[in-house]
Amino acid sequence: MLKEHIKKAYNESAEGKRKGDKKIEVEKIKEYILSAENIIIPNWDKKKLESINKVLKKFGLPQAKGLKIHTNAADLTRMPTITKALMAVDTTDSDLVIARGRLGIPGSGSMLVIMDCKGRILSAAISPPHIIHGKSLEEAVEEELKTALKRLGL
Amino acid sequence: MLKEHIKKAYNESAEGKRKGDKKIEVEKIKEYILSAENIIIPNWDKKKLESINKVLKKFGLPQAKGLKIHTNAADLTRMPTITKALMAVDTTDSDLVIARGRLGIPGSGSMLVIMDCKGRILSAAISPPHIIHGKSLEEAVEEELKTALKRLGL
Repeated sequence: MLKEHIKKAYNESAEGKRKGDKKIEVEKIKEYILSAENIIIPNWDKKKLESINKVLKKFGLPQAKGLKIHTNAADLTRMPTITKALMAVDTTDSDLVIARGRLGIPGSGSMLVIMDCKGRILSAAISPPHIIHGKSLEEAVEEELKTALKRLGL
Repeated sequence: MLKEHIKKAYNESAEGKRKGDKKIEVEKIKEYILSAENIIIPNWDKKKLESINKVLKKFGLPQAKGLKIHTNAADLTRMPTITKALMAVDTTDSDLVIARGRLGIPGSGSMLVIMDCKGRILSAAISPPHIIHGKSLEEAVEEELKTALKRLGL
């Protein structure tokens, strides 16, 4: 369970004894992701959904479903991708949310975040603004999701 | 000025006409960063400060000052690095903040964020948990800052 390890880490931080991420904590995050049954992507974009599902399949994860919600509204907030992910947490019964959008202010490029059923951030990846990297949307999204999974050792 | 371009982008999003980051928006972020005079790093760690200053020098930016504040408290929040950066925004007159810490829950690895004087997110970079990448703190921090600056074309 994530909650026990989070509690332990919070107490270590409060007591000034925290030394950085532990192997068991990373393992628990991986376990959580690998046991996900209902993955939601807050997005209408078919290309994005297909790119994400292609990568999920490679990692042995179930296919994600898209969520039709007005994600444009998230772009008027300070962390659009985090806001989008929380929109999915708040409006579905998903156990894993994968959201992709803008990192910060307009011009700041993109972020992909992997969030659990409570809105806790498990992993993420960041790309340059599209006008700088010049990659296709599909390519960029695929790379981001791979990076976000691989960085945990998946 | 960032504010005019943010307002324009917000209106575009509200009207469903937004097409992604614009070149002028990225240029304005670069201008903001390059004109920074007072850079603050919310951290007591000398190694981290030295690594960051080494990179700032290479990019022609002024040396950053450390901020002695109880950043441990940030590790009890959902986005420790963002919280740390905001602690610096709220307690100093810096025009640029560079914070480095945990991305999300314990075990989720690290993030470096570049924030402006109002707490707006300009850029960021993400690394795997230390126990996975095995790099030294100095090496990891240097790479993250380089990535965060280069992704905007700096």
